Amino acid sequence: MNQDDLLLADTNDVLSTLRDLFYLPPNTVYLDGNSLGPLLKRVESRLQKTIREEWGQDLIASWNSHNWIDLPVKVAEKIAPLVGAAKGQVICADSVSVNLFKLLVTALQLNPKRTRVLSVEETFPTDLYMAQGLQKLLGEARCTLSRVKEASLIEEINDETNLIMISHVNFRSGYVNDLKVITETAHRHGAMVLVDLSHSAGVIPIELDALGVDFAVGCGYKFLNGGPGAPAFLYVNQRHQNKVEQPLSGWMGHRSPFDFSADYIPRPGIAQYQSGTPGIIGLSALDEAMTLWADIDIQDVRRKSSALTSLFIDKVQNAAELSDLEIVSPLDVETRGSQVSLSHPDGYEIVQAMIASGVICDYREPEVLRFGIAPLYNSFEDIIRAVDLMKDIVKNKRYRDPAFGDRNDVT
Amino acid sequence: MNQDDLLLADTNDVLSTLRDLFYLPPNTVYLDGNSLGPLLKRVESRLQKTIREEWGQDLIASWNSHNWIDLPVKVAEKIAPLVGAAKGQVICADSVSVNLFKLLVTALQLNPKRTRVLSVEETFPTDLYMAQGLQKLLGEARCTLSRVKEASLIEEINDETNLIMISHVNFRSGYVNDLKVITETAHRHGAMVLVDLSHSAGVIPIELDALGVDFAVGCGYKFLNGGPGAPAFLYVNQRHQNKVEQPLSGWMGHRSPFDFSADYIPRPGIAQYQSGTPGIIGLSALDEAMTLWADIDIQDVRRKSSALTSLFIDKVQNAAELSDLEIVSPLDVETRGSQVSLSHPDGYEIVQAMIASGVICDYREPEVLRFGIAPLYNSFEDIIRAVDLMKDIVKNKRYRDPAFGDRNDVT
Repeated sequence: MNQDDLLLADTNDVLSTLRDLFYLPPNTVYLDGNSLGPLLKRVESRLQKTIREEWGQDLIASWNSHNWIDLPVKVAEKIAPLVGAAKGQVICADSVSVNLFKLLVTALQLNPKRTRVLSVEETFPTDLYMAQGLQKLLGEARCTLSRVKEASLIEEINDETNLIMISHVNFRSGYVNDLKVITETAHRHGAMVLVDLSHSAGVIPIELDALGVDFAVGCGYKFLNGGPGAPAFLYVNQRHQNKVEQPLSGWMGHRSPFDFSADYIPRPGIAQYQSGTPGIIGLSALDEAMTLWADIDIQDVRRKSSALTSLFIDKVQNAAELSDLEIVSPLDVETRGSQVSLSHPDGYEIVQAMIASGVICDYREPEVLRFGIAPLYNSFEDIIRAVDLMKDIVKNKRYRDPAFGDRNDVT
Repeated sequence: MNQDDLLLADTNDVLSTLRDLFYLPPNTVYLDGNSLGPLLKRVESRLQKTIREEWGQDLIASWNSHNWIDLPVKVAEKIAPLVGAAKGQVICADSVSVNLFKLLVTALQLNPKRTRVLSVEETFPTDLYMAQGLQKLLGEARCTLSRVKEASLIEEINDETNLIMISHVNFRSGYVNDLKVITETAHRHGAMVLVDLSHSAGVIPIELDALGVDFAVGCGYKFLNGGPGAPAFLYVNQRHQNKVEQPLSGWMGHRSPFDFSADYIPRPGIAQYQSGTPGIIGLSALDEAMTLWADIDIQDVRRKSSALTSLFIDKVQNAAELSDLEIVSPLDVETRGSQVSLSHPDGYEIVQAMIASGVICDYREPEVLRFGIAPLYNSFEDIIRAVDLMKDIVKNKRYRDPAFGDRNDVT
């Protein structure tokens, strides 16, 4: 793509006007929206109101007058269309980790004769950790985590499998798991599916209901731009609701929390999956961030995402300076999420040098340079700037500066 | 107390200058800080910075540059002195409900031969609900919740008891359970103690270490003023750390979360009790609210709290108009927390009439009118205004207005 084509691409971008709705640091290309989405200007205003007017002035009355009590459902219903869920199946609560626990137990209780939870080694670690914790708690007679290679997942599904727990998009490589094939295969074997949508919600069209997916979790702070540590969401397919009780049975999931009765009775439907008192400021940020989606077609987002990641890969493949970098992400755009991952033995140092020069990306062990692509604010020009900078850094070995050598940093 | 005495009391109040640090609605007496503490002006400023500068400008780099990653520990270390805990035993995470689950499992795993969790019917319901959920999950062979009357707790502790789970201050009555006697009795029987400090942290001196209490949880949004749904905290006595793994083993409790390894290895010490990604905006609010305590002696807070609740009760006892209201809170100031609870068959309607006239209090089933006393901002004059208003409302039966009759509201 030459300079003219590039300008044309950004000009023809139906999403290009959205960029101005965000605060983005000046002279910076932000390619880390798969780790932390940026601040929407409207979210800042909303939070000022939540903090000063709702908490500050109206205080306790805000639970009713500003409908704090309904926020977990209200926000969830804004997320639901993005994941292909009809009303009453999504709730905002807690973290992805804690929600995984609720759903793992739900699956095991729905079919206690089957104890095998099947996942893949390459999935986001917290998903594996939560299953490991549950296995230790319940014992292997009730829960056994079986980890296989992502590539052999389908063939590992068998008639002993209770649940397949899988990331929709692999956080490291960006590989898109085929939810249709996985769900069909699982159901053919009488197994259920729990999908982690953290790296796909907001960038890839998702059809949970249409595919018959059983359960899902997802993250509010990546492509949904809900703020650092935003509340997570979870989905329970209608057909699995009201049959078992989720184990973290806190008062906000009680049928009548303000009766203060001593016996737990779950609320009907998805609302049971709440536990303790929700963080209202975090929920308000996510609620406001989700208002953006009223005017956005997720198909447009996916189209632009595909164009941006394809341009990125094309530029890398055509740069002699970058021939030492391996392309980790799928070359097939259909199985590529909204990120480009490369690998290089000096990956950590290259990422640090990129950040120091104004292109924010991140590093993931082992040796992976990750570039998150957020079509709501990333432009074609962003991609060109990023790859051009990387060429310069790698060619001149600028990353060999000891200032870029501290691997103790967490991001 | 006559008008002159009252003015003298407020003048002599060593905490009186703190009131101006809070936003309090004009012409209002706020007696609901035991449900939601008000907004500190410094918290509003801090959140503006967190939102605009940290999230908005520095984005993902803030995990390091603004030490977001250390916030759960940093905030906890500010709470620790208030609960009498030496370093390394408190962490901020999740909600009270979710933290109770972690600690219930910890206790059962430390002594699996004993399965009995002993609690009292009058404790805050979410504590009971979480134990009920765990009992259902593990089965009665591993966990049995035994609920007794608060008054007979001590005699019910036996050599089969694993854990006593008790609120420090009863949320309805304000009764202060004697942690010294409970802990001594429990330990004599080889049992452990888990205390819910939600209604005592910030208003009563607490000595977890000195009493040898085993576990505790507490709330960030009541007397600590951390904002609606603020992160909760938990305490694990040093002697119980690193022996078992808490069950909600999310990545933030992993020894090296950014290695992204597939096997869970807990972080040493209290940090293991983190689970998913923490909500940074909520933690920042609580962190800033806790800075207030650097200059406050909790003994002064308790002294003022006792004086305020005593004045309230004295005024009620001396008002002929209020003779139909029963005083639910202990008359002995030593066993009375920082609230006054009364009861009346029309309690709900009286509370609504009070709120409509500018005295914010709340109602708890059955028939309880609750007045939370927060010595950091409540004055002696507040108490006089509240009781005088109640006298007027009850005498003239102003609460019989149908506008005050909707019991569907949640607060």
